Amino acid sequence: MAYTTNGGNGEYSYSNNSSFQRGAADAAKELINEAIAEKLDIQNFSSSNTFRVTDLGCSVGPNTILAMQNIVDAVEVKYQSQGHNTPEFQVFFNDNASNDFNTLLTSLPPDRKYYAAAVPGSFYSRLFPNASLHFAFSSYALHCLSQVPKEVLDKSSPAWNKGRIHYSNASDKVVQSYAAQYAKDMECFLNARAQEVVYGGFMVIIIPGRPNGLPHSQAMVNMVGEILGSCLLDMAKKGIISEEKVDTFNLPGYFASPQEVEAIVERNGCFRLERMEILPQAIPSGNFSRGKVTSSQLRAGMEGMFKEHFGEEIIDELFDALHKKLDESSIFESGNGSSLFVLLNRIATV
Amino acid sequence: MAYTTNGGNGEYSYSNNSSFQRGAADAAKELINEAIAEKLDIQNFSSSNTFRVTDLGCSVGPNTILAMQNIVDAVEVKYQSQGHNTPEFQVFFNDNASNDFNTLLTSLPPDRKYYAAAVPGSFYSRLFPNASLHFAFSSYALHCLSQVPKEVLDKSSPAWNKGRIHYSNASDKVVQSYAAQYAKDMECFLNARAQEVVYGGFMVIIIPGRPNGLPHSQAMVNMVGEILGSCLLDMAKKGIISEEKVDTFNLPGYFASPQEVEAIVERNGCFRLERMEILPQAIPSGNFSRGKVTSSQLRAGMEGMFKEHFGEEIIDELFDALHKKLDESSIFESGNGSSLFVLLNRIATV
Ligand SMILES: Nc1ncnc2c1ncn2[C@@H]1O[C@H](CSCC[C@H](N)C(=O)O)[C@@H](O)[C@H]1O
Ligand SMILES: Nc1ncnc2c1ncn2[C@@H]1O[C@H](CSCC[C@H](N)C(=O)O)[C@@H](O)[C@H]1O
Repeated sequence: MAYTTNGGNGEYSYSNNSSFQRGAADAAKELINEAIAEKLDIQNFSSSNTFRVTDLGCSVGPNTILAMQNIVDAVEVKYQSQGHNTPEFQVFFNDNASNDFNTLLTSLPPDRKYYAAAVPGSFYSRLFPNASLHFAFSSYALHCLSQVPKEVLDKSSPAWNKGRIHYSNASDKVVQSYAAQYAKDMECFLNARAQEVVYGGFMVIIIPGRPNGLPHSQAMVNMVGEILGSCLLDMAKKGIISEEKVDTFNLPGYFASPQEVEAIVERNGCFRLERMEILPQAIPSGNFSRGKVTSSQLRAGMEGMFKEHFGEEIIDELFDALHKKLDESSIFESGNGSSLFVLLNRIATV
Repeated sequence: MAYTTNGGNGEYSYSNNSSFQRGAADAAKELINEAIAEKLDIQNFSSSNTFRVTDLGCSVGPNTILAMQNIVDAVEVKYQSQGHNTPEFQVFFNDNASNDFNTLLTSLPPDRKYYAAAVPGSFYSRLFPNASLHFAFSSYALHCLSQVPKEVLDKSSPAWNKGRIHYSNASDKVVQSYAAQYAKDMECFLNARAQEVVYGGFMVIIIPGRPNGLPHSQAMVNMVGEILGSCLLDMAKKGIISEEKVDTFNLPGYFASPQEVEAIVERNGCFRLERMEILPQAIPSGNFSRGKVTSSQLRAGMEGMFKEHFGEEIIDELFDALHKKLDESSIFESGNGSSLFVLLNRIATV
């Protein structure tokens, strides 16, 4: 099963339901500009007249278009401020092959300052030639695991996650399985990128996460998952879906803390952690139903996965139920909606 | 108006109606292998560990996938035979942004030996960074003009092409307008590629064309266009479409002779013409209606353009009429179905 957000431009398309992700990206923008201005050492790249950027897990836009534009602009300023000729830019938009690249590619701005390309495939494996990238970026994508950890679906395992669809409020064994899968996936990710990013090249990762020490169950993203699980159990009780169906479904996502990320980066050894920040919380606020917005965003991001497992028929009811339960809950007040900003620098290893 | 072939995998999809183009590509395969084995000087590329290939006007496959695989294999053999390490390959699939890249990207073979990317945009303008390509390929795409020459649609011009949709059997003025548009487009194409292809890099172009001296009206492609035009006029007579509609429509395609191509390449001056061949004629033969096959292939390639101008309603009737008229005609016996194979080498200019 590969993650795919909803394509096109319809009511539940990712294009029209990604403002939450954009909120965090806006907060990250300043940090990225600072990093490029102060820390990017363009002397490292003097042998190349092309500056290559990628967005890993780009979806269909519009967020990726803004993010890439920002990086290109900031790098251009940097070259100019140091008296160098502006390089040519090539931007690679990556996502799983099932992503709706048609929507993305037809909405790129005609006056863009870069050569664009779409790269299909999982970012947990190699996607680019050796030493061909100068700046890798990934926003709200690296919490997606390559798969649900096998044990949590295995009835005979002590980590079987019966009656739940995620790890928060589950047994320690379940939490450990998820954390181990995350560490393994991140190791694959960092190893692939280590080969693709040139020495001195940057990598910026933005992920929904949680502050050190915060219990999983208090991260807002986990609270939403918990409520989603309870909606499915309600539907099982009503006989709309079977309990078996719920037991065989788990969400393939994990939300890490800064400490966990730091440990993974250090163990890998190919990148130096230049900066890590908790981004200001981007909890939706305004004159609208936050439950509705959150439910629609989840739907835009994950509907495909639910359709595949539970069937198309239940989708409307499921996300309606989620919307209502979210509005009745207090998670927007009590949950922690942190995102992590991580800046890595590819270093020469010995 | 941008050319777009039919996406997806349906009855009139390009995927299922591109065997004619594949016939010529097969014939070209041997010539490409020979060129790589005998003429490609890989010493030119020793500073790069990545070999970059592009297919310009790739459509949705499967032809492009076979063609790219073949080039990668042949280059790999060449490196090995000269005792070099195999480079990494990166293949860029280019077409207009409206191309159905989703179909192409999900049908790439999982065990491919190259990193894949899709590049949206017209090949008459820049698509890649400076000196970033080692092998550019284009098959059955460069006969598509960037636009119908303006004069042939202009009532007040001596080149107005009343009552016809193409230049064969039209006045000299019309033919000259088309030839001039072709030369202009090719100049843009060569100038863009001259910047993108490294010195010593290759470009292979396969186009439907005509032998030197053959009148336009005897090229099979032009005969088909002529019959298509007569189908439209029939429909105008029946009142299904207006005559005005036919007068304001012309096919944006041109079929060149070797002499014309040679002159354009020489005038441009950035490439050396290494080889030019007339490919064996790929006229459909077998136990089926050649009219039907040809009509379906045309439909797969150009339906979009007709829908836009004449409306969706007339499409079935138009291509049915074409199918019948083609079967009644003798064009498969009397027409000339030549394709040109052109091998260019990017040379240093002074
Ligand atoms: N292993 C993987 N490889 C590539 N993309 C992946 C992936 N796992 C998840 N994704 C993609 O990650 C995206 C997460 S949605 C976030 C999209 C965008 N970066 C934004 O900030 O708005 C989805 O499009 C999903 O398909
Ligand atoms: N200016 C342009 N830039 C890029 N692609 C173009 C183009 N004009 C036409 N094309 C594309 O050229 C393709 C011609 S069909 C040939 C497809 C493929 N090369 C094969 O041999 O089977 C179409 O997909 C069309 O969209």
